[in-house]
Amino acid sequence: MVDILHRVGIKAPLDAVYQALATRDGVAGWWTNDTQGDSRVGGALRFTFHAGGAEIGGFEMTVIALQPGALVRWEVVNGPAEWIGTRIGFELKQEGEYVIVLFRHEGWKEPIEFMHHCSTKWAIFLMSLKALVETGTGQPNPNDVKIDNWN
Amino acid sequence: MVDILHRVGIKAPLDAVYQALATRDGVAGWWTNDTQGDSRVGGALRFTFHAGGAEIGGFEMTVIALQPGALVRWEVVNGPAEWIGTRIGFELKQEGEYVIVLFRHEGWKEPIEFMHHCSTKWAIFLMSLKALVETGTGQPNPNDVKIDNWN
Repeated sequence: MVDILHRVGIKAPLDAVYQALATRDGVAGWWTNDTQGDSRVGGALRFTFHAGGAEIGGFEMTVIALQPGALVRWEVVNGPAEWIGTRIGFELKQEGEYVIVLFRHEGWKEPIEFMHHCSTKWAIFLMSLKALVETGTGQPNPNDVKIDNWN
Repeated sequence: MVDILHRVGIKAPLDAVYQALATRDGVAGWWTNDTQGDSRVGGALRFTFHAGGAEIGGFEMTVIALQPGALVRWEVVNGPAEWIGTRIGFELKQEGEYVIVLFRHEGWKEPIEFMHHCSTKWAIFLMSLKALVETGTGQPNPNDVKIDNWN
């Protein structure tokens, strides 16, 4: 089992960062505009990605944990085969004027090339989260920063 | 042992990407302006980082492999304790109009919080490498994009 790890610090109130992770409208502001479903614990969230007006893929997740101001966790139930069964967690804590986000996408079976891509792309999206909360404007798909020939 | 993995695609000639990784002036254009030493196999490279005019840390690496157009590998011999003995590799290949860089920073003993930070920061620096080769201008330290309260 191998994990993708990241850390960003956001200069904003803890609750603002939490809301950007724990609500549908929040996630739509930094990951993908096309975020649908129920963001409560046990609910199913559907994240769909687009390029040039066409759908290029997506993920369905179950919300498995919500701790206000502290933690958001999802489990992948549908999407690319390599993602199914993996878990995505955002752990929050305050350090001075920063809210620290510790990110982990855990449970990958093998360190395949697609995992390398997803690792870089998660960093880009976490910087989009930081921009959203600090400035009001993120770069969710379809306006996300492209990193390679896969997106 | 745990690894940091990334993948970026760069629209440029393969040799231009290789030169940005295999030469001192190349690395100075995307990682840190203050890159010193000998970039030949067996040589020692010193990467020093600055903030507000003061030195904030650095790494010394031995170049352990150079394969033109294909691979650059370093081993960390001095720097933060968690980095010593780890290895950093850049594997290159052509896919259509993109040069794909598969990055691996391997041999971390534990998935500590500092590793989360370094993972995100490597993504930022690989995007700086991409910008350098595609546009002529990277964002090496001290002009690097800051991600959190650690830099």
